Order: sequence, then C-alpha cells, then structure tokens
Amino acid sequence: MSIDTIYLDYAAATPIDERVVAVMQPYFATEFYNPSSPYRQAVEVRRDYEAAKQQIAMTIGAKGDELIMTAGATESINLAFNHVKGHVVTSEIEHPAVIEVAKLRDHTLVGANEQGRISLESIEAALRPDTELVSIGLANSELGTIQPLRKIAEVIERERQKRAEQGNMTPLLFHSDASQGFGQIDVNTARLGVDMLTLNAAKIYGPKQVGLLWLKPSVHLTPTVVGGGQERGLRSGTENVAGTIGFAMAAKLAAKSRTSENERLSSLRGKLEALLVEQFPQAVVTGSKKHRLPGHLHISFPGIDAERIIFMLENQNILVATGSACSANKGTASHVLRALALGEEIINGSLRLTLGRNTSESHVRTAAEEITKAVRAEYQRMEQAV
Amino acid sequence: MSIDTIYLDYAAATPIDERVVAVMQPYFATEFYNPSSPYRQAVEVRRDYEAAKQQIAMTIGAKGDELIMTAGATESINLAFNHVKGHVVTSEIEHPAVIEVAKLRDHTLVGANEQGRISLESIEAALRPDTELVSIGLANSELGTIQPLRKIAEVIERERQKRAEQGNMTPLLFHSDASQGFGQIDVNTARLGVDMLTLNAAKIYGPKQVGLLWLKPSVHLTPTVVGGGQERGLRSGTENVAGTIGFAMAAKLAAKSRTSENERLSSLRGKLEALLVEQFPQAVVTGSKKHRLPGHLHISFPGIDAERIIFMLENQNILVATGSACSANKGTASHVLRALALGEEIINGSLRLTLGRNTSESHVRTAAEEITKAVRAEYQRMEQAV
Repeated sequence: MSIDTIYLDYAAATPIDERVVAVMQPYFATEFYNPSSPYRQAVEVRRDYEAAKQQIAMTIGAKGDELIMTAGATESINLAFNHVKGHVVTSEIEHPAVIEVAKLRDHTLVGANEQGRISLESIEAALRPDTELVSIGLANSELGTIQPLRKIAEVIERERQKRAEQGNMTPLLFHSDASQGFGQIDVNTARLGVDMLTLNAAKIYGPKQVGLLWLKPSVHLTPTVVGGGQERGLRSGTENVAGTIGFAMAAKLAAKSRTSENERLSSLRGKLEALLVEQFPQAVVTGSKKHRLPGHLHISFPGIDAERIIFMLENQNILVATGSACSANKGTASHVLRALALGEEIINGSLRLTLGRNTSESHVRTAAEEITKAVRAEYQRMEQAV
Repeated sequence: MSIDTIYLDYAAATPIDERVVAVMQPYFATEFYNPSSPYRQAVEVRRDYEAAKQQIAMTIGAKGDELIMTAGATESINLAFNHVKGHVVTSEIEHPAVIEVAKLRDHTLVGANEQGRISLESIEAALRPDTELVSIGLANSELGTIQPLRKIAEVIERERQKRAEQGNMTPLLFHSDASQGFGQIDVNTARLGVDMLTLNAAKIYGPKQVGLLWLKPSVHLTPTVVGGGQERGLRSGTENVAGTIGFAMAAKLAAKSRTSENERLSSLRGKLEALLVEQFPQAVVTGSKKHRLPGHLHISFPGIDAERIIFMLENQNILVATGSACSANKGTASHVLRALALGEEIINGSLRLTLGRNTSESHVRTAAEEITKAVRAEYQRMEQAV
C-alpha cells in the first residue's frame, strides 16, 4: 500500500502489523524446527507454539488446548460442521463458507430484519427436534451489524432444557464465526454462550492463512484432515508455528488498543457518514446503526452503479468495496443485501467503507470529497442520459 | 539456528531461504489486498498469485490452473483421496497422512523390500477391479528411498487397459506425495505418469503451511473445504498469496541449483557414511543405496538406544532424528522400519541424518566425530552394565 493510498476496505483484508511480522520472523529461518522433532531446540519451538495458543486463548477467556489451529476461517467453519449429520440452522446473511457447508446438510436459513439483525424468534422457529447445530456470525462482514449472540445462546439453552425434559438426546451446539468483529468486539466465549468459535488472524492485522476453531471441552468433532494426529487429532499437518505466534501478537495488540481505537474509528466513521449524507440526502445507510462495528459504513446512493464508483475512486487511490469481496469478484449482487430485501436501486448503489488502523481524519475528508465528486458525476451522467 | 548448530534433519524441516522471505515480504503489509477485491491493486495481487502458480507448475511440466493450493502436504493428500469411495492401494511405508486417509476406506497396504523399495508385483497383486486410487510417495521420508513411480504408472496403465477391454468403467487414479524428494529430484508429472501430485513448500526451503495438489485436467475431485469457491471450488478460503509467491521462489531456487547441489550433498553424505562405517563396521545402512535421495543417510548402530544418542548430540549442538519426526514425538518405533521387518536392535539403534543447503564439509566431519564419540560411549556403557 503506497503512502498516498486511502484504503477503506479493512473488512476485506488488513495489512499485517509490522510488530506481528517482527515476532514471526525468527521462526522463518532460525527457529524453523519441526515442533515434533525430539531435540531441545524443536521442543522449545513447540513450547513457543503452545504459549502462543495460550495467549490467543486468554483473549477469549479460554485455554490454549481448546484451540484447533487451521489455515483460516473457512477451514475452521468446515471443521465445526463436519461432525453434524442432522439439521443445522444458520442465516441467509452468513459468510459463503457457512452457507455452503450448511447446504451440504439438511438446513434452515433464517432471514434478517432490514437492519441486518437476526431475531431470536426466527432462530426459535427454525429449531427442530433434530437440529444439531446453530451457526450465526458475530458481526456481518458486509453491513458490520453485530448479532445478539448472548440472547441466541439463551434460546438454544432453553431448547436444550426442553429436550432434556422430553428425553430427546440430540445434542445442540452453537457455533459463531467471529472473524469479523473479533479485535473490535471484546469476545469472551463464556459470556457469548457459544460452544464453538471461529477466529481469523487475517482480519486483525495478523498473518493470512491462519485461523482457529475454539471448542468447549465437552465438544467432540470429526476431523476434516487426518494424518500425523496434530491438534488433538482434529487437524493433522505440521503446526503453523510462525503463523500462530503472529496471531497471538495480533490478538494482543488488538486487545490492548481496543477501547481507544474503537472510539477513534467510530468518530471517523461518524464524520464520513455525516459528510456523505449531508451531500446526498437520498443516501441510505444500511444495517443497524446501534449494533454496528465501529469502523464500518455501508451506504447506498440509490440509482448509482457502485461498480463504476469503485473504478473512479481507484484512479484517485481510494480503495473501497461493493458488497463482500467474494461476491464482488463474481460480479453477482451481494447475497446479504438481497436477503435484506432492499430494492435493486439500493443494492446496486451500495458501497462498503471500512476504516482501520491506518485511517486518518485527512483520509476520511479526502475520501468524502472524492466519493462526493464521483457520485455527483454519476448522477449527472445519468440525468444527461435520460 | 545459531551459527554453531550442525543441523542434520533437513527431512523434518528446512529453514526458509532468505530470498524466499524477501519475495514474500511485500505481500505482508504492502500488497496485502484480498485477491477477490475489485480494485486494480487487488487485481494485480491476483495476477501475481496466478503468475506464482504458473511458475511452480512449470517446474513440474504443468499449468498454473492445474494446481490447487493448500495449507500443506497433509491437506493436499486428504483432498486427493476425498472423492474416493472404493478401494485404495498404498504402502506400509507412506507418510502417516496417506496411511490414515487410506484407512478411512477399503484399503490394501503393500509392503516394501528390505531396501524400502515397493515392487511392481506387489502393486499389481493389490489391484482389484474396484480399486480407484493408488498412492505411492516419490521418496520415503525416513529412508530417502526413491520409488519407481514411472514403472508403477505403467502397471496402472495396463490395469486401465484391462478394465477398458472388460468393460469395467471404474476409474483408476495414481497419486504421489512428492513432498520428500521434490527439489532434489527433477519432478515432471508426464514423465512420472501420475494423475495427482502432492508438493510441499516447507521441505524445499519455502514457507511452511503451503502445499499443493496438482491435478491432471481430466481428474475431478470433491472439495474437503467449501465456501467462497476459490481454487476452482476445490479449496475455498482467501488465497495464500505470500505463501504461494514464496513457494514459487523456493521451487525456482531448487531447480536452478539441483544438479550441483545434488552432487555436493551426495559427496558429503558419502563422506559421513564412510567415516561412520569405518568406525563401526557393525553399522547397518538402511534403504536403497542406489535409489536414494542425495542428502539422506539412514544408519543404525545395532543395540544402541538412538534416543540417547540424540540427546547426547543435542548437547553438542548437533541435531539429528530417529525415524520420522512424527513417530519420534510419540515415542513409538517407526512404522517404516517396522514394515521393513528389521530386527528390534536395528530399529532402536537408527539415526536419520539428512543433509541440506547449509551443510558443509566441516559439519560432516564434526558430526561424524561426535556421533562416533556418543555411540562409542553408549557401547561402553552397555558393556559395563552387563
């Protein structure tokens, strides 16, 4: 990212923090040993690896050996679902990884309200006596809307009690993909009431291709990858030492600055939103304003083709997204926006602006100006075309 | 690895080459974009990613889009087997990942001769009309023995022809885990006659947690991980850009110096072997001497407890292995040595000494001296104990 780039797509990817790269570096060429080797130097590498897991675990109120390290959120999600033979409940606005893995099974996709929030009633209604898993993401990656996980956990707990009374022995687990939100939201597994949690280093200025699945000790899974028996047999393959150590540093840095950084991002996001809405009163801010990630702004300029805006902004070195990176790439309209039953005009005119650690006030002002210019030019072009 | 460490365990792990780290570095914090994002900067990252795949593919005579990038050899092996419902044939001396994934299916494990070579006759005898997959590694990671893949491919091709004549439509594929050997052996998919090939960057001075599965274009697999549909839908999850670019550089470096490096390693290995055998005429060199990786020496001092030798050497900063890192860690005797039906005395007295890019002549001389001291001390201790 060159110095003059204004990057407003932190929800798609975050640059690795230089302090994270620094702690990983020794494990590339110096402490590169296979943690399964018998000599002291390798045993020390294993010890560093276990310590890093413990450090990550502590940030979510868990223990190191409850974490299964994976190559990212997608693998972690697949692992969380792998043992499930019965019915699963998830939502229409989840990440494609959750939806695709649900579709391999008997599944119900609940909707979301117009603010992108999933209602407790919809979860309750979707539960069946044979439901084995509910999976709802902590925060929606397109809208930034935060879901009421704690309350959903209570619904699930009531269902469990009902089953116990009825003698229904079908286990019911609650999984959450917290890739989006972890780092900004203080995630504690006990407080959230989840049984399994997916985290992703790549979204918190950590290394890419590093994720994990946290498991409550009572949960037993089926591995997606078998072999040497690493990660308690649930994920074979030589351990990702450098990646895990980088993840631990990223989690630590995020936790340390969380409060102040959230305030800063929230204030900058507020400015950006105000500047844009001031210029375009017809603009629609999508998602919950109350339950929203601090750096997230999902805004639509009805009637505009957002793809064109992206290319105009790109020429000014301002990088923004429409919908999620996944769907943007395929040129299809966002499945999330479609699930919210927004009008076509609003869907097609949507920009996702996500702020992060390097976003400054001047970035926000310049971005607001350039977005204003681009959107104005588009509205004018369309008027002339009529 | 400190400057005075004599590392003789390159088969367990290789340090990342500094030239590999250098090409990865820009993708950590500068070109960190999600390759699925729509703006030019991200499209350029995708282009670099595809170019790296093409570069790796060229070193094995393949095309970039025939590679499915994974998080390592174990995942790649699991993916290669995932579509198979019928019978599989592999060997007793394969990596645990191959054996474990085979065991989830109807399987036959063929043996190896006392040199660790798998015979064409044993493969031929194990093939059944419902065999769907044969998987034999290019080189055994414990012994360094190179397998006759081309000839095994011919056996498989004859079986295919027989099936065609008999109207048996069951497809038969040939997979090889070439993690051990790639880099030292010139691997060409067409010449080897394989349909699927597993490679691992971590064994060729590349980044860890990066592997791939090469697929002949006619092969259709079932994904182990579903989601955003990356890697032709066979391996979802944001692409590992830095890792793949590092892999490409590692493959290029290995190819460039292969001939001279193999000569150098083979000569050093010869010296080490001669020095040890000279001191201990009873020493047994295991594995094929003719078909052996150039840096590999598997040697046993009958009656010795090799674990004790490892700890004695470790104190002299000399790092060696007994058996594979995987089994060493579990404290169980190597499944490979057991499959060769070697006596207990030979199995327990085995050291695996694997030489690599940083091994020098003085390393070899010092290692030979220290191994001699340690083994001699052990033989004396045992004599006194009698």
